[in-house]
Amino acid sequence: MSGRVLVVGLGPGDERHRTPAAEDALREARHLVGYGPYLARIALRDGQTAHASGNREELDRAHHALQLAAEGETVALVSSGDAGVFAMAATLFEALEAGRAADVEITVVPGVTAMIAAAARTGAPLGHDFCAISLSDNLKPWETVLGRVRAAAEADFVMALYNPISKARPWQLGKVLDAVRERRAPDTPVVFATAVSRPDEEIVVTPLSEARPEMADMRTLVIVGSSETRCIPRGAGGVWVYTPRKAPVPA
Amino acid sequence: MSGRVLVVGLGPGDERHRTPAAEDALREARHLVGYGPYLARIALRDGQTAHASGNREELDRAHHALQLAAEGETVALVSSGDAGVFAMAATLFEALEAGRAADVEITVVPGVTAMIAAAARTGAPLGHDFCAISLSDNLKPWETVLGRVRAAAEADFVMALYNPISKARPWQLGKVLDAVRERRAPDTPVVFATAVSRPDEEIVVTPLSEARPEMADMRTLVIVGSSETRCIPRGAGGVWVYTPRKAPVPA
Repeated sequence: MSGRVLVVGLGPGDERHRTPAAEDALREARHLVGYGPYLARIALRDGQTAHASGNREELDRAHHALQLAAEGETVALVSSGDAGVFAMAATLFEALEAGRAADVEITVVPGVTAMIAAAARTGAPLGHDFCAISLSDNLKPWETVLGRVRAAAEADFVMALYNPISKARPWQLGKVLDAVRERRAPDTPVVFATAVSRPDEEIVVTPLSEARPEMADMRTLVIVGSSETRCIPRGAGGVWVYTPRKAPVPA
Repeated sequence: MSGRVLVVGLGPGDERHRTPAAEDALREARHLVGYGPYLARIALRDGQTAHASGNREELDRAHHALQLAAEGETVALVSSGDAGVFAMAATLFEALEAGRAADVEITVVPGVTAMIAAAARTGAPLGHDFCAISLSDNLKPWETVLGRVRAAAEADFVMALYNPISKARPWQLGKVLDAVRERRAPDTPVVFATAVSRPDEEIVVTPLSEARPEMADMRTLVIVGSSETRCIPRGAGGVWVYTPRKAPVPA
């Protein structure tokens, strides 16, 4: 008898942003497989087993989920945010293609990814054409990261930057901000949205000229505005950041 | 007394992909303002009033929501998917900046946007760097649309194409597919995901060489793979589409 893998995104943090479909999947699974801090966000039910792993062990984790399912188990493979955006869904299909588990039913359950939650908290910075780029060069060449940032800046996309910084990757964000500064005005709004919808949430909006890598940590999603992205005063103080739907005729 | 505007994304269709925070906002509002077919997806409660408008009247709709809130009302301004992605949140801030309503509390509630739902149904095509581009040239020059598509294709982003086609914009998608074909291999996977999570859902995966505008309608989200996006057999028949986390070293 073959089992199932339910690939589940928990949303950004607050359970109020987790969909009923995701909650159902978490309830249905007998095994929960994921990065330890994400599993810690789930209240285990009787009969459920949690299998926590480190954050650099994605492929092993995916193989483990497939193996349990091949034994007939129902497994939730858990990510933060949405599982399909820089998270476990792609890894699961990599493991599936590598072929160690065969006839397993797979369901990917969509969720609210970090850039969507960060955008909602700050206004509507993703209101017009945008890119999502992971700054991690663990699995792709640094030149590819930088090339995409440059292309996105030149084509005037808003950019959502995932995995901006970590202990193992301390300098990448600074290089990216420098590359953007060569192509965007100094007053372009940049959003550093950390731990969105969690108790320690912190949102910083700063002009590109003053954006510094130290404003981000591993829990931060960075949004760099396009040439059209604007700040307007917020009633309660601070600013709203939004990108109008309208784009000007190029010069 | 000033009121509130809650900018709410309903998710892609199935209520199981609508967050509790969105449900709460819909319950709390006394006035629901939105495009008619979206409002039709909400069960009105006693004392709630629905204000439906046509799909080209976004700015008027946003002004209406602000005006009701300025009169002290609690208003849900409703979008499909996520309100922040090619939807009403940006329009609301445009209206706010135009200044017809002043001291109103605004909350943007994040949701599951169409590309996230479409990606989950087909595997993990957005598993690596991607762009979201609206093909509508109602508010931006066509050259800007095409320039962004070309830039995204050259930098090897996956592309999620919103608003691919309509009666008023029948030829744009064909031009975009032609522009991509000049820069991507003929076997690049293209996903046409229509009415995702609704009873009439239809998913078509086709190689770029065979992608045709007729495969899309107003309810379709199109995903064009990068050079790395792959198809693998699905147990139940058909294919999974995914983009690996790894990118090759450029030649």
